[in-house]
Amino acid sequence: MSRFPDSPIAISLGDPAGIGPEVIAKCWDNRSAFDLPPFVAIGDPRSVGAVWDGPIELIDDPREADSAFDVGLPLIQLMAADADVPGHPSTAGAHCSLDSLEIAVGLARSGSAAAVVTGPVAKEMLYDIGFAHPGQTEFVAERCGVSPGNVAMMLAGPTLRTVPVTTHVALVDVASKLTAALIESRAKATLRGLQRNFGLAEPRLAVAGLNPHAGEGGALGREEVEIIAPAIAALAAEGWSVTGPHPADTMFHSRVRANYDAALCMYHDQALIPIKALHFEEAVNVTLGLPIVRTAPDHGTAFDIAGLDRADARPMAAAIRMAAHCAALRAEAA
Amino acid sequence: MSRFPDSPIAISLGDPAGIGPEVIAKCWDNRSAFDLPPFVAIGDPRSVGAVWDGPIELIDDPREADSAFDVGLPLIQLMAADADVPGHPSTAGAHCSLDSLEIAVGLARSGSAAAVVTGPVAKEMLYDIGFAHPGQTEFVAERCGVSPGNVAMMLAGPTLRTVPVTTHVALVDVASKLTAALIESRAKATLRGLQRNFGLAEPRLAVAGLNPHAGEGGALGREEVEIIAPAIAALAAEGWSVTGPHPADTMFHSRVRANYDAALCMYHDQALIPIKALHFEEAVNVTLGLPIVRTAPDHGTAFDIAGLDRADARPMAAAIRMAAHCAALRAEAA
Repeated sequence: MSRFPDSPIAISLGDPAGIGPEVIAKCWDNRSAFDLPPFVAIGDPRSVGAVWDGPIELIDDPREADSAFDVGLPLIQLMAADADVPGHPSTAGAHCSLDSLEIAVGLARSGSAAAVVTGPVAKEMLYDIGFAHPGQTEFVAERCGVSPGNVAMMLAGPTLRTVPVTTHVALVDVASKLTAALIESRAKATLRGLQRNFGLAEPRLAVAGLNPHAGEGGALGREEVEIIAPAIAALAAEGWSVTGPHPADTMFHSRVRANYDAALCMYHDQALIPIKALHFEEAVNVTLGLPIVRTAPDHGTAFDIAGLDRADARPMAAAIRMAAHCAALRAEAA
Repeated sequence: MSRFPDSPIAISLGDPAGIGPEVIAKCWDNRSAFDLPPFVAIGDPRSVGAVWDGPIELIDDPREADSAFDVGLPLIQLMAADADVPGHPSTAGAHCSLDSLEIAVGLARSGSAAAVVTGPVAKEMLYDIGFAHPGQTEFVAERCGVSPGNVAMMLAGPTLRTVPVTTHVALVDVASKLTAALIESRAKATLRGLQRNFGLAEPRLAVAGLNPHAGEGGALGREEVEIIAPAIAALAAEGWSVTGPHPADTMFHSRVRANYDAALCMYHDQALIPIKALHFEEAVNVTLGLPIVRTAPDHGTAFDIAGLDRADARPMAAAIRMAAHCAALRAEAA
């Protein structure tokens, strides 16, 4: 297969006052060292200019990105109403970040871009302008015509991939949100995603328990017996390679990780603690279950360090590399 | 300070049918490579002989351990009623493991041993013979005249130490077990333990939140606001260096770990997932809050591999090394 897909990667700059513009510009600066494919940013060029002195190549069509990429950072121009000030989010900036996301997803949907990478947005600002989705993932799912219940958020690093079944839920409410149907749905999105995005014909999924020691046969909680094990049995009956429920504390050792392609976790921190402990700078957020490839760096807008030239571009570079890798695998399979 | 304490480390063999005898014998075999101080095992010599062909030096007094250590594995003899069969726990073996624990703790209490390291026991077998403690930790605490509520179980590896506030509790019940008083008690046991066992005059404790993103100011759970933050404030008012509540998923990156000496975690897997992901073979269980030094390898009896020469001795070696290190630090401070 080709190392890179034929079309460029579309990247939404995210909030113009966050670190998105800086890390994307740094990715272009270090495109050789980071081994990055051609990409095109979508957003306000002033937000890049405010934090970076390099060349920007304004383009109108993603097909120009390939040749422009050697000259400067290819960018499809959107304007926020006011000049963007790093570290100071505004309503105009929120509109710009939403337009940027919309266009980037549209380019991937139409095939003009091979994949979409989303820069970090300020959710609170988006809610203020009427954004009705919990986050970018649900927005992208809707634009792709997919129910949010059928997508899965994967955190993928070099030696571990995890998927949380529940996400932004208070810990005390996690157990009441867990159903066998939800676990099966997330498991299938994960397994199909491992096939489509990672080229694994027979993916292996390890499912974590909810309780300490996976409940010790019911002594430390009944969810493993009543909810998780039946979901695993149903998946196995369909022919999927699924094991568990495993005690979560012994699942993430390197020797154990070699036995599965992804770990399905019951709650946010069960999935995010191990991936961030092991792969802080390289963990990529990959949305599974979509007709397009979508990745994102697993960090926020970091308004507190925006404009200070302190943002680490490695997570964004990892997200771009993984988007290209997944897109090339999909193109090969198509 | 001296590298090793003046007295030997007392090691209970644990269940004679488990992997305790094998890993302790392997530690003696590799005492130079593992950089281990003189130690004395307490238990049934037949359980060692069943899995190891090396020399055993039967002694009656720990003071003989130092010279015996060059010749063979020093061992204070206890007999199970029947010959021990690796992988087949028995009532007699359970009695032997309990006697072994009792004597090892007594030797440390009397000062004849510098510290105690406990081999893995079969809790179910112990319960059957009337053992009324949840585990060895609570038994050791009682023998030392300390309330179990005032001890803390630390998991310590080369670059991370974690302490769970709650341990073997179903996840749905964790929130209801958390009180500011319990958090403060565990925090103080941890902070004093860092001083006494690790020689840190001004220990720094990082306290995890319970919920995703540490509750996002109450939006994802109120425990941070109502329970954890007040406990931290009370500890800080006493002059301790305590920070948090921190989002658990971003606490265990190497750069963040450098900012604290131990992480206080709200539940079992929050503490054990990161330590086992990062330090599977080197994580040592250290009981804080005791008048003696007590460590243990963080694994069980592993009856399924007992007698097969497959047990990894590195966790036991790490537990012995850490016991010696802590004992030497305490002796220096005394």
